[in-house]
Amino acid sequence: MFDCLMHHNSFTRLEARLKPFADHISPLTITDSEQIGRPWGEAATDGMLAYANADIWFSPASRAFAKTIYTAPRLVWFQSSAAGLENPFLQKAGEKAEKYTSSHVQSEAIAEWVLWAAFDWFGNGAQRRDAQARQEWEKVHFREISATRWLIYGFGHIGEAVGRRLRGLGAHVTGVRRSEHVSPFADHMLHPDHVSADEIALADAILLCAPHTPQTENMANADFFAAMKDASLFMNVARGALVDEDALLEALDQGKPAHAALDVTSEEPLPKESPLWSHPGVTLTGHTSAFTSESRARNDELFLENLANFLNGAPLKNLVKREAFEAQAV
Amino acid sequence: MFDCLMHHNSFTRLEARLKPFADHISPLTITDSEQIGRPWGEAATDGMLAYANADIWFSPASRAFAKTIYTAPRLVWFQSSAAGLENPFLQKAGEKAEKYTSSHVQSEAIAEWVLWAAFDWFGNGAQRRDAQARQEWEKVHFREISATRWLIYGFGHIGEAVGRRLRGLGAHVTGVRRSEHVSPFADHMLHPDHVSADEIALADAILLCAPHTPQTENMANADFFAAMKDASLFMNVARGALVDEDALLEALDQGKPAHAALDVTSEEPLPKESPLWSHPGVTLTGHTSAFTSESRARNDELFLENLANFLNGAPLKNLVKREAFEAQAV
Repeated sequence: MFDCLMHHNSFTRLEARLKPFADHISPLTITDSEQIGRPWGEAATDGMLAYANADIWFSPASRAFAKTIYTAPRLVWFQSSAAGLENPFLQKAGEKAEKYTSSHVQSEAIAEWVLWAAFDWFGNGAQRRDAQARQEWEKVHFREISATRWLIYGFGHIGEAVGRRLRGLGAHVTGVRRSEHVSPFADHMLHPDHVSADEIALADAILLCAPHTPQTENMANADFFAAMKDASLFMNVARGALVDEDALLEALDQGKPAHAALDVTSEEPLPKESPLWSHPGVTLTGHTSAFTSESRARNDELFLENLANFLNGAPLKNLVKREAFEAQAV
Repeated sequence: MFDCLMHHNSFTRLEARLKPFADHISPLTITDSEQIGRPWGEAATDGMLAYANADIWFSPASRAFAKTIYTAPRLVWFQSSAAGLENPFLQKAGEKAEKYTSSHVQSEAIAEWVLWAAFDWFGNGAQRRDAQARQEWEKVHFREISATRWLIYGFGHIGEAVGRRLRGLGAHVTGVRRSEHVSPFADHMLHPDHVSADEIALADAILLCAPHTPQTENMANADFFAAMKDASLFMNVARGALVDEDALLEALDQGKPAHAALDVTSEEPLPKESPLWSHPGVTLTGHTSAFTSESRARNDELFLENLANFLNGAPLKNLVKREAFEAQAV
C-alpha cells in the first residue's frame, strides 16, 4: 500500500478512476487551505507516490505540498505535469524520488499560445483593436502566417507541436536541435552550431523553446537581435534566462525585432518596475502558456496510465534519468 | 489591340510581366488622384479589359474607375479580385462585360483573419492584455482550438480554407452547404435544411461565410442565437445582411454567444452610433479580412494567367455565368 499524494481537486476529479487501485493506494490529499485529508482512511504504507500538477503549482498550498514531499520517509514515484526540471523544488523531488516522470503534454497548449501571439502580431491585432476603439472603419493591412518563415530553437516536444501547426498553415519552418534526426514538422533542421547570422536574418519569427543550459543561457543577446530581420517577431516560451532582457529592450527600440511575445522572464513573477510590462513592443503573459483544461486532462490521463504501469511493474512513460538531477545539481 | 484598365500601382507592379502582351494590350492607368495615363502610348482599340483589385477598391479614384468602365464603348473582359457579386458596381460591370471573372484567392487571407479572432477569443487575449496593462503576473486560463467544435455556414472557398486550417489544428469541423459533395476539410457535412437547434448547440464556434441570398438574409436571428452554446463564439466574414444585429446585441447581453467577431456589418462603413463598436463582447474590423500582400500577389497571378488565357482564346478561370448578374438584378 502506497500513500498517493495529490491536490484535493485532482482527487475529486479522478476518484472514480482511482477506485480500481484501491487495494494498492491510499489517497493523501491537500486543499488550497493546506488541509491534509485521507479520503479513503488511514493505511500502513510502503512509501509515497505523488502527482504534482497545475492544481498544486498554482495553489497557495504548494509549499505545504513540497514540505510533505521533503519529509516523506520514502518517495517511491513522483509524476510531474511539467517538462522542465530546473525548478529547485523539482530538483529536490528528482533527487529524492526513486522514480521521477515528467510530462510533455503541455506542448500542445504552449503551441496554441504561440499561434495566438503570432496571429495577433502578423494580423495587426493591436491596430485592429485601436481602430475599433476609435470607431474608425479602417483599412488595416496584415500579413499571413502562410507566408512567414520561422526559426524554432529547440525542436523537442514544444518545437514539434508548433512546427506541426505552422506547416499545416503553410509557413516555412526551420527547426534547431542537437539531435541529427529529421522531423516531419520542419522544412529543414539545423544543428545549433550551424545557425548563422544569415539564417537568423531570414526568419520572420524566431521562437525559443530550448531548455535552459549553460549553452543556451543569454543566447538571445544584442548580436542575436542585431541579426534579426526587419518587422520580425521574437518569442520565448522556454526560460527567461535564455534572453538578455536589457539587450531585447534596446533591440526593440531599434525595431529588430519589431515585437517580442514572452511567456517567461528572467525573474518570475516579473517585478512591477520592469520596463517589459509596458513596452509597446512587448506582449507579456505570466508563464501560463500551458494553462488549459485540455493540458490538465492530458496530464490526468498520463498520471493514471503511469499509476497503472507502476502498480503492474511495467515501464513508466517519461521516466527521467537520475543523471538529469545530479547533473543540474552541480 | 485592347485597352487594359487598371490602377497605376498595379501597372507599376506588373509592367515587366505585361510586356510580353504589348502587341495586344494598351495599358490605361488611373492614379489615386484620378490621373488617367497611357504609359505605353495611344492605340486603336477593340474594346476594354479591366482589372479591379484592392488598389482600386481602397482608392479615392474608385468612382473614376467605375465611370471609365460605365462609359467604355465595349467592355470585353472584367477581372475582379473579389468573390462576391452583389455590390452594385460589380453588378453593373457584370451586366456590361462580355466576360466577367471573379477571384477566390482572398479565402486564404480571410481564413487567417478567422484564426486570428478565434485564437484571441479562445486564448483569452483580452484578459491577457488586461493583466499585462495592470502589471499583474496573472494565471490566465485559456481554451485550446484543438478542443473546439465548429459549425461553418457556407463551405465554399472560404469555408474550406478555414476548415483545412482548423482540422490541422485538431478542431472538429462541420461544414454546411447545399452541395452534396463531401469535403476533405470537414469532419462531416450538413445540408442547410438539416441544421437543427441541437446541432447549433454543439458548436463552440459558428462561422458565417455563405453568400447573401434571400435564404441567408437574417439567418442569424434571435432563435439562432438562443440555440447557441454557452461560452461560444459567433463570427461573420460573409455579409452583414446575414445577421440581425439587434438580436445579436441582445444575445451577447444574455451570454449566447459569449463573443462575436465581425468583419462585416449590415451598413458599411458602420455608423459611429452603432453599439457594435463599443460592446465588450464584439471584435470588429472594417471589412478588411482579405487585405494582405499575399492576397494581392495571388490576384495578380490570377489576372496575368487569365490575361494570357484571354489573348490565346483559352478558357478563363472563374468565369461567372451571365445569369448570376441577371438573377441578382431582379
